[in-house]
Amino acid sequence: MRIEEKIKVLERVALQLEPDQIQRSELRDQVIDYTEEFLENINENKAFIQTDHKGKAIYDHPISEEPQPLNELINIFKENVEKTGLNPASGGHLAYIPGGGLYPSSLGDYIADITNRYAGVFYPSPGAVRMENMLINWMRDEIGYPDTAAGNLTSGGSIANLIGIVTARDAFNLQSKNFHKVVIYLTEQVHHSVMKSIRIAGLYNAQIRHVPMDDHFRMDVDHLEELIKTDKEHGLQPWLIIASAGTTDTGAVDPIDKIADIKDEHNLWLHVDGAYGGFFILCDEGKKIIKGLDRTDSIVMDPHKGLFLPYGTGIVLIKDRKLLFQSHYYKANYLQDAEKFDEELSPADLSPELTKHYRGLRMWLPLKLFGLKPFRAGLEEKIWLARYFYEEIQKIEGFEVGSYPDLSVVTYRFMPKDGKPNEFNQKLLDLILEDGRVFLSSTMIGDKFYLRLAVLCFRSHKEIVDLALEVLKEKSKILVERD
Amino acid sequence: MRIEEKIKVLERVALQLEPDQIQRSELRDQVIDYTEEFLENINENKAFIQTDHKGKAIYDHPISEEPQPLNELINIFKENVEKTGLNPASGGHLAYIPGGGLYPSSLGDYIADITNRYAGVFYPSPGAVRMENMLINWMRDEIGYPDTAAGNLTSGGSIANLIGIVTARDAFNLQSKNFHKVVIYLTEQVHHSVMKSIRIAGLYNAQIRHVPMDDHFRMDVDHLEELIKTDKEHGLQPWLIIASAGTTDTGAVDPIDKIADIKDEHNLWLHVDGAYGGFFILCDEGKKIIKGLDRTDSIVMDPHKGLFLPYGTGIVLIKDRKLLFQSHYYKANYLQDAEKFDEELSPADLSPELTKHYRGLRMWLPLKLFGLKPFRAGLEEKIWLARYFYEEIQKIEGFEVGSYPDLSVVTYRFMPKDGKPNEFNQKLLDLILEDGRVFLSSTMIGDKFYLRLAVLCFRSHKEIVDLALEVLKEKSKILVERD
Repeated sequence: MRIEEKIKVLERVALQLEPDQIQRSELRDQVIDYTEEFLENINENKAFIQTDHKGKAIYDHPISEEPQPLNELINIFKENVEKTGLNPASGGHLAYIPGGGLYPSSLGDYIADITNRYAGVFYPSPGAVRMENMLINWMRDEIGYPDTAAGNLTSGGSIANLIGIVTARDAFNLQSKNFHKVVIYLTEQVHHSVMKSIRIAGLYNAQIRHVPMDDHFRMDVDHLEELIKTDKEHGLQPWLIIASAGTTDTGAVDPIDKIADIKDEHNLWLHVDGAYGGFFILCDEGKKIIKGLDRTDSIVMDPHKGLFLPYGTGIVLIKDRKLLFQSHYYKANYLQDAEKFDEELSPADLSPELTKHYRGLRMWLPLKLFGLKPFRAGLEEKIWLARYFYEEIQKIEGFEVGSYPDLSVVTYRFMPKDGKPNEFNQKLLDLILEDGRVFLSSTMIGDKFYLRLAVLCFRSHKEIVDLALEVLKEKSKILVERD
Repeated sequence: MRIEEKIKVLERVALQLEPDQIQRSELRDQVIDYTEEFLENINENKAFIQTDHKGKAIYDHPISEEPQPLNELINIFKENVEKTGLNPASGGHLAYIPGGGLYPSSLGDYIADITNRYAGVFYPSPGAVRMENMLINWMRDEIGYPDTAAGNLTSGGSIANLIGIVTARDAFNLQSKNFHKVVIYLTEQVHHSVMKSIRIAGLYNAQIRHVPMDDHFRMDVDHLEELIKTDKEHGLQPWLIIASAGTTDTGAVDPIDKIADIKDEHNLWLHVDGAYGGFFILCDEGKKIIKGLDRTDSIVMDPHKGLFLPYGTGIVLIKDRKLLFQSHYYKANYLQDAEKFDEELSPADLSPELTKHYRGLRMWLPLKLFGLKPFRAGLEEKIWLARYFYEEIQKIEGFEVGSYPDLSVVTYRFMPKDGKPNEFNQKLLDLILEDGRVFLSSTMIGDKFYLRLAVLCFRSHKEIVDLALEVLKEKSKILVERD
């Protein structure tokens, strides 16, 4: 066959990848029917569904040569993905750190996927890069970083933490033969993505100091300074302090302002993991609690938590953009056409990624469409809901609480008159999950098993917190009577 | 104000974040009108638009308290993002490594964002995790890895390369005080994301050997073995070979089978960056060219390149899942509820990420909806289109070509009778970009400036390659006559 004929034969089959306008409309209508049904029932449906199958039938439909119609695929998704496990789009998701799912973000991703802008480099996609930079500049201003700061929209808090730690490493020009002599200061409450990032960055031989905490699980600043001094005396190189603006376990906010004093005195790098709590600075109550972010060197915040976006967007900000650039820039011949244009910083020069999803649009669209007011109100509402729960749970017989919530996480447990509290609360959680109207989680504080309530989903309002209280009351009563 | 009243006041404002069914429909209709117009005109519109403003007006609409209507936002997007720079959704995007943008992926992301499944851990989202694992298993089988392999859907090739390199580092239990003694073997044609990953992984003090290449820019295996032997003699630790299944510059495929012989003999880790070319193994012509993938230790492939997905999905596969798990697993108290369920591997234990976009759906939906046939045909078509271009460009007076394309990248340049070829081809490229009907790029091979044609967008068919030839003929003629 001649080469042109061969190409024509292949093209005819390949064209099946491009549905026409009518076909697109048919596909889209089915998806809209499904998603509208999902959204219309979201307040009635359970937050958590336990099944035995756990979506196993996904494997009954392997990737194969043959096409399968969309209605069947939507049903497979519905039965095996939607209808088993946790629904993080539900206001009843009050566990871990809840996510979001603002509707305009789904439209933003839809547009991003169809137009497929390459948001990594300014030259091919100047507008998309400017949009991402504008969002970063907005957050830079909110936390009080100078104009010479820069940042990156990441896939989430983990890569954002990695970027911060790698930049800190390179800012101090650490050489690997000395990695075992550098010291990192953090508390046991630091998020485990931080520990993973340290490992990924090759720093697993570095010295890790677990700074003791106060009774609210906040870093104890006096101990921090002692540790630094001792390490210096022993010829080690104190380098990095990692503080949390909202720990995952208890929502504790480390005293960042005081930690910044110490890092200034000793010339260390201060990285703040604010993946959970950072965006609370958008509201007045949050501003009272989180202070001194402007004095840090790098900070992580997660729009897919505190800005209620669907999963897939984190942010890192670095106070000195030169350092971020030095760690992540790399020149390549095949990008030579892009080098003449340097009006804007390019994400590909500021992150480990090169080609990536155009994450700006899913964030820009809801922020512009709604304006900031409802975001500020929603965040403040979540803080007050946690405080409300903290008061109300103590009114239910048998419950005791952990420390007063800094942000929107409350720890509490039922104290059975006889029997072991750890076992009792595990059973209580099992009953709650079996019920499924709300989804709660647990943690160990020391050797004590605590239940957690975390309020952050934009769909979580007072009604759902009252439901959580009702479920806790009902299930604890059942357990007490059963035992 | 009582706490309940305070909450109610805040709730009323926060509820603006939840448009009702009618509002959603109004928003959606505007987005559909815009995207349908975009798609209906995609073959007529330019692949590249040069503007002076480069989307600067994005900054005229900062993030603020006040909402802005969607029609205005769509116009801002259209003028400042769509209508400036490169359109990677266009079949005329024949530069760098082109992307895709299959329509069902945009529906997949739309569903993923609304339902907001947490695809990081099996316990909360068993079905979503199974879907991602099924996709990974399918690719595992396609490249011939054993059942004991595992992998991860990443944001793109860069993080995928990072995961591969970090896993290789930890598999050899490398300690940082010895990083400067370990040796990495690669060619100068390796993608720069590999170099970035090495740096991010803390390995910037490792020894890098640039293995010489043959005249097709493929790794020279004899030289590789010599280098390894010499390094061993000098007390260094040969560790990692990084080969390419399709380099970005010229699309060259390293002789993976022969490299695997050497890595077996010397017990090294063989990582293959197949971000660009890996998926060509889905078609017969590709299988003839890329051989021995099953003998590697880790491999990267980019569905947002070779599977025509919109930007945002890469893949890494690791032959020994234990090693991937050991590098990326971390235990945390607040995840204790998730530990009882280990029927499936969880992405969060196999990657640097924890919370992330549910990337499986945007890949599963088009694969299931279309079946594999049109993907195989499309990939084979791209290979033949490159070969076709390689023949045809030589028929236009003045053009000479680089090496015969291994996959779908062709290098070529115009040889002016007098004058300097580098300057001439730069001017030629400038004219082509000014024209904008097709988008081409350039690279340096040695000290020679070459133009590149890369065919990979699913919308690139013979018609657009003929247009590229026509534009090259027309513009080179203008330049010759002008000079």
